[in-house]
Amino acid sequence: MTAEIICVGTEILLGNIVNTNAAYLAEKCAYLGISNYYQVVVGDNEARLLDAINTAKDRADVIFLVGGLGPTEDDLTKETAAKAFNVKLVEDDKAKENIISILSKRGLDITNNNYKQALVPEGSIVLYNDNGTAPGIIMEAEGTVTIMLPGPPNEFIPMVDKQVEPYFMDKGNGDVIYSKVVKIIGVGESKVADQIKFLTAMTNPTVATYAKTGEVHVRVTAFADSEDEAKTLVKPVVDKIKEMYGANVYTTNEAETLEESVVHMLSKRGLTITTAESCTGGLLAGTIVNAAGASDVFNGGFITYSNKFKKNMIGVKKTSLDKYGAVSEKVAKEMAKGAQREAKADVAISTTGIAGPGGGTKDKPVGLVYIGCAVKDKIYVEEFRFSGNRAKVRQSTVAMALSMVRKYVLECYK
Amino acid sequence: MTAEIICVGTEILLGNIVNTNAAYLAEKCAYLGISNYYQVVVGDNEARLLDAINTAKDRADVIFLVGGLGPTEDDLTKETAAKAFNVKLVEDDKAKENIISILSKRGLDITNNNYKQALVPEGSIVLYNDNGTAPGIIMEAEGTVTIMLPGPPNEFIPMVDKQVEPYFMDKGNGDVIYSKVVKIIGVGESKVADQIKFLTAMTNPTVATYAKTGEVHVRVTAFADSEDEAKTLVKPVVDKIKEMYGANVYTTNEAETLEESVVHMLSKRGLTITTAESCTGGLLAGTIVNAAGASDVFNGGFITYSNKFKKNMIGVKKTSLDKYGAVSEKVAKEMAKGAQREAKADVAISTTGIAGPGGGTKDKPVGLVYIGCAVKDKIYVEEFRFSGNRAKVRQSTVAMALSMVRKYVLECYK
Repeated sequence: MTAEIICVGTEILLGNIVNTNAAYLAEKCAYLGISNYYQVVVGDNEARLLDAINTAKDRADVIFLVGGLGPTEDDLTKETAAKAFNVKLVEDDKAKENIISILSKRGLDITNNNYKQALVPEGSIVLYNDNGTAPGIIMEAEGTVTIMLPGPPNEFIPMVDKQVEPYFMDKGNGDVIYSKVVKIIGVGESKVADQIKFLTAMTNPTVATYAKTGEVHVRVTAFADSEDEAKTLVKPVVDKIKEMYGANVYTTNEAETLEESVVHMLSKRGLTITTAESCTGGLLAGTIVNAAGASDVFNGGFITYSNKFKKNMIGVKKTSLDKYGAVSEKVAKEMAKGAQREAKADVAISTTGIAGPGGGTKDKPVGLVYIGCAVKDKIYVEEFRFSGNRAKVRQSTVAMALSMVRKYVLECYK
Repeated sequence: MTAEIICVGTEILLGNIVNTNAAYLAEKCAYLGISNYYQVVVGDNEARLLDAINTAKDRADVIFLVGGLGPTEDDLTKETAAKAFNVKLVEDDKAKENIISILSKRGLDITNNNYKQALVPEGSIVLYNDNGTAPGIIMEAEGTVTIMLPGPPNEFIPMVDKQVEPYFMDKGNGDVIYSKVVKIIGVGESKVADQIKFLTAMTNPTVATYAKTGEVHVRVTAFADSEDEAKTLVKPVVDKIKEMYGANVYTTNEAETLEESVVHMLSKRGLTITTAESCTGGLLAGTIVNAAGASDVFNGGFITYSNKFKKNMIGVKKTSLDKYGAVSEKVAKEMAKGAQREAKADVAISTTGIAGPGGGTKDKPVGLVYIGCAVKDKIYVEEFRFSGNRAKVRQSTVAMALSMVRKYVLECYK
């Protein structure tokens, strides 16, 4: 099956927004085994949209139309798609009720424009929208499946996940799709891609790598007649990848982020953590706090950007700073131990490094970072040389710091 | 003049990467007064790329082709574009030298594949690449300007800014383009868009709004015979916008971010700042440290996520916590005063709020945030009710905290 993704919106053509919806839908298509050969963006212009739909009709089985489902006159996705396929628009009662209920809840007046959103192509499947007034639509006509979705990501993403994905799951000639992700930290994407080349050559299951900040996600997807059969195809491949990357695999749970996996791991063991940050300046703690449930394990942390703060807040020794410099193994260790002591925490993680653009020397170049990790009475430190600009170095530091917490806590508390 | 943007790359069709290049180029086109009606993504497939180029030839004056200029056999943008316009590929000496020099510097062997990158359509303008081995190309043929650019953003962006933009500047019938941005904080995008509607209706200069996290950027662009003339057209409009938004305008300097404007403002006045963060958990300090030069004004900060840390680290009173709760005006004030005192800083900014998803009550709903700001012996506090998820609430809090620092420091130190 082939799909074409058409995003509608002048704001994309003006560069006002980045088209993240297309990427989301493309990844979902890959997951569903649907080939995506073309992505197109057109503005809120009937002639050009009609042209794009007609072109897509000739070369794709599924057409996604994203955006242009709003209440204004500029929004003409439904009207144009109905025209392209000679289908009448009719009012959908439930969609209308939903609009009235949402607008009243928000205390807004209902105008005639709003009812335009309740119009749907006759005979189509209506995707009711829990997060907004625009219903989505699946229209099957002339051998083509046309799927219309609202543009705001908070409406678009849940509709894709909860309604579009099941539609294709049910449709697939009885085929079941099953997919599992292996999330890897601390190994470069090109290295992983290279090492698992022998796996990516397979056709069922398929194996694909996705690079995320400091992480690589490997997705294994199988098609089969039953879920059990698909799982049987996926399992040995997932096991092989887990075996290859051992402790670098932090989760195979789709929804779990690195910071969540760290928070859960600490919480399960009844441990608390604190932070002492120099080059990351608060980003590391800010990331830990991203995880819901962070308050169970994290009470607070120290941002010790200057040497004075390193000394006064967490007792780094003046002699260490003088002799080894702030960016050193010694200071990273003292920062972690000091923070652990001051916060009375079980675990402490520290960062000190040169994020750039200035401040680098021949001996201590931009990108040099020391991360210290205190776990109970043990102390660990690792040296890194990250590439990229200031923001990239800091993001990489946060990812590796979380990775170290995982590694050393698992080492001390099996 | 109309442009079509064609991005080439299977990794976009698989959703492995988000197409930020298209947005960058689209914004640049808008700035250059070039209308962008279509954006297209195709994979590394000759037939489909040729089809896309031929379609674009019929409907655009300028075709951008982004990606597919690498050394592998999959990379076929140049070959396909040359075919579409019946132009021969010839080796460019300077591009070849550049490839040899870059690869030797990186200590890599040069293979025949690499020389493929030195081939360019005969008679075209070669855009030499300071950051990689793929040269860009401007090919003028059959009345169409076809511009080929490398896909990696660190090669693509400088080439667009330093070579493509001047090409159009020089081309424009002697027309000069001049543009200025007004960066506004603390006013919603739809409000700004509505209030300046009378300005956006103009055609020269043009006025466009761009929503950024917690900010709105208004761009004013004029075309004229000379730069002076263009500036004369832009100035009264910029002045009008500055007058309308007063202290909410934090800069008209293209390159300056909000955190940089705050750091510069403090630095100019010889002031230091510290942070006391609860709901933002380090993000605010992490953002301040984004600004180069942050070390001049920021020595460190406090992450006081739990009540215990609020008491122990920065002396928030137990009675205040008990009586008003951690999320209150009173505690926000005590956090700022306490951090200011402990850090011996001139300015302190504090955050306490309910970022969600849990923790909300009827009286204190998710999104309720208090931000305290101490400037010397003065203390200010503001209450906010942000919408959106946990991440959004925290980002909005950071933006408004920086905005408050600006406002109150300017109030105390004219």
